[in-house]
Amino acid sequence: VKNVTTSRSKWHVPASIVSKRTINPIRETVHKMNAKPNPDKALISLALGDPTHFGNFKIHENCIDAVIKQLQSYKANGYPPAIGCEEARKAVAKKFSTEEAPLTSRDVVIGSGASDALNIAIGALCNEGQNILLPRPGFSLYQTISKSKGIEDRYYNLLPDRNWEIDLDQLVTLIDDKTVCIVINNPSNPCGSNFSRHHLELILQVCETYKLVIISDEIYEDMVFGSTKFYPIASLTKSVPILKISGLAKRYLVPGWRVGWILIYDQNGVLDEIRSALLSLSNLILGSNSLIQYSIPDILFNTPNEFYEDTINKLERNASISASILSKIRGLHVIVPQGAMYMMVGINIKEFKDIKDDLEFTEKLLEEESVMCLPGRCFHYPDYVRIVFTPPPEKLEEAYNRIREFCIRHHI
Amino acid sequence: VKNVTTSRSKWHVPASIVSKRTINPIRETVHKMNAKPNPDKALISLALGDPTHFGNFKIHENCIDAVIKQLQSYKANGYPPAIGCEEARKAVAKKFSTEEAPLTSRDVVIGSGASDALNIAIGALCNEGQNILLPRPGFSLYQTISKSKGIEDRYYNLLPDRNWEIDLDQLVTLIDDKTVCIVINNPSNPCGSNFSRHHLELILQVCETYKLVIISDEIYEDMVFGSTKFYPIASLTKSVPILKISGLAKRYLVPGWRVGWILIYDQNGVLDEIRSALLSLSNLILGSNSLIQYSIPDILFNTPNEFYEDTINKLERNASISASILSKIRGLHVIVPQGAMYMMVGINIKEFKDIKDDLEFTEKLLEEESVMCLPGRCFHYPDYVRIVFTPPPEKLEEAYNRIREFCIRHHI
Ligand SMILES: Cc1ncc(COP(=O)(O)O)c(C=O)c1O
Ligand SMILES: Cc1ncc(COP(=O)(O)O)c(C=O)c1O
Repeated sequence: VKNVTTSRSKWHVPASIVSKRTINPIRETVHKMNAKPNPDKALISLALGDPTHFGNFKIHENCIDAVIKQLQSYKANGYPPAIGCEEARKAVAKKFSTEEAPLTSRDVVIGSGASDALNIAIGALCNEGQNILLPRPGFSLYQTISKSKGIEDRYYNLLPDRNWEIDLDQLVTLIDDKTVCIVINNPSNPCGSNFSRHHLELILQVCETYKLVIISDEIYEDMVFGSTKFYPIASLTKSVPILKISGLAKRYLVPGWRVGWILIYDQNGVLDEIRSALLSLSNLILGSNSLIQYSIPDILFNTPNEFYEDTINKLERNASISASILSKIRGLHVIVPQGAMYMMVGINIKEFKDIKDDLEFTEKLLEEESVMCLPGRCFHYPDYVRIVFTPPPEKLEEAYNRIREFCIRHHI
Repeated sequence: VKNVTTSRSKWHVPASIVSKRTINPIRETVHKMNAKPNPDKALISLALGDPTHFGNFKIHENCIDAVIKQLQSYKANGYPPAIGCEEARKAVAKKFSTEEAPLTSRDVVIGSGASDALNIAIGALCNEGQNILLPRPGFSLYQTISKSKGIEDRYYNLLPDRNWEIDLDQLVTLIDDKTVCIVINNPSNPCGSNFSRHHLELILQVCETYKLVIISDEIYEDMVFGSTKFYPIASLTKSVPILKISGLAKRYLVPGWRVGWILIYDQNGVLDEIRSALLSLSNLILGSNSLIQYSIPDILFNTPNEFYEDTINKLERNASISASILSKIRGLHVIVPQGAMYMMVGINIKEFKDIKDDLEFTEKLLEEESVMCLPGRCFHYPDYVRIVFTPPPEKLEEAYNRIREFCIRHHI
């Protein structure tokens, strides 16, 4: 028998290199957390980025009916094209077209959640050994995806005392010949911030100068409070190519449905190769659930406006409860959120007598008060904790009262 | 500004290396096909591996009701764990456990279709530069996934005159120190074959000798005809570690729903690292639709047996119509299918006066008779065509009559 060196004598099946570098910092941190909730107090989690968890944010019945209609049609069970069915791509293009940044179905790739959309977008642009600019603090999936592909992750700073705007001076120091693109996330998880028009224009200037493609994760688009206005970054440029990531998860309160998309903004045709690359990569897993895909026109166009308003009003109320209670607790400092469903709360660590860092803060808080939040290190930002403010107001207040007691107890 | 070499003067955004090597041979071939259907004849496609396409294979209403129940519960819209919700994993484990090869929910990873399951399984096992053994003829996604990851694809032959059994002598010549695993697909797409118990045992012997992990794609499990019996390969070994791939797509006639799974068979604990690897990789896209996941217990346990029997009876009838008509056409030779929904039909190319290969055969057939089938080269097997026999019998007969006319016209 040709070629065969020898039969092997025992089983040895190591995990692949890629799987070993595919790291989820949230899972790793939570795994390492050395704490159990206090058995005398009911657990309140402020850790889950899943608005459906507490039952107070509910999907609109229009979306349920849309899917039932597809189920009963017997016509939405087959394979859609890998990049998404034409009906869904058309509806998404129509919904998100603006005068400054028009879209057709050609510019839309449907993926299995914004996660898959990000995975495909980053995979289409970057090679192993190149680098990508990511926000700090930032959503950890960007790191998971980049490291998995052997792309070097470089972090630009967001400035807490400037409402989490990008430190553009520091950002440009990161750029070199191997820098392919920048991921921005606006409104932000974990910051709850929203960039001003002016700040977005400055970002575009940097990207224009250094010819960086932008991957703009706008999954929380339009989820902003009060007089804050959200600008899709693609509407502010005619020349910087942008892959915008969004989806149904947050806006329609259906994260489990796994529908996201990439919108290709490329008024000067510099992304032609990237279009084919997105298509090729979408062939690996063949996209997202057909029932939901065929429901997208209904979901996007027949869900009443009051549903969105109601969601945002509830989030805004929770944000304001959160900011007003937490800002009065000694030892913490609060950056008031402008959107999304998150806020970062700073811990003035030197003011605590027996807590050395954000990890110990969250561990002890869980152990003593059964309140769970994620330490800032999950987002590359120690000495902060991230709070998800989607629980019902009474739960939030109870959680914050416990945090107050906790801080009083441990404050110097 | 530190580090920055220079601003770049123009946009240059090439596609990534990975995207360029992510090739779908079916798409490439169809794209290259230089033919349009005959406008005077209605198109009949025997090319689509989607049983829902013609409306004659219909999802059972139990499956519809199961999903509606989840929709109306308002409790199945959140994120399930990345490897799948416990309810689904438990149900799958229970359904597919056998005495010889027991499973618990720990042994189940839910993915977004069998495609995602294959992508994760291959990605967990193999590194760039290693090699993987794939069937020829075989389903082209194995190549797409492997090449995408820089894994060398090596092909073992299936023997048409032995009912598409593996040529084990040739297979062992492919194995070297960089060979990690073998993909087998039983019952087979595109062959419609089903391995005997004896043949599966011989495969296991080779894998035992050379310590090859088996990825067994059994997405067509139990879809076999007459007295043919399907054996899950995992039920025939106590020592060879197996990742079995399957899902809802074919058995439940819902390919668009995108639910597949990996079953981990590892009675001696040699796959411990691989379990973690599967978990890590599942974090990239967070798995499959929650509504369907929560419906899985209902779908697996409450769909009446008559539904499966009816599906198989219809497929068997179509297989038998296909074999009996096509085997009488001069210039073709038929290997009678034993299962699944496909058959490979050989073209005795020298008997045709003006057709040089499988590609030209399918092009001219489409142009003259508006019958579409895929050339064997899509499956690494020239001089054959693959036929999908899911259309209704009258459509099949019409298509085969046209193929007969076509062959008569072009035969020497
Ligand atoms: C900023 C951001 N992007 C993307 C995602 C992932 O979205 P999906 O659930 O659609 O994959 C999330 C989810 O929390 C997110 O916060
Ligand atoms: C052999 C084989 N494996 C896997 C798949 C993919 O299945 P899914 O649609 O669940 O991704 C197919 C689909 O045709 C197939 O034929």
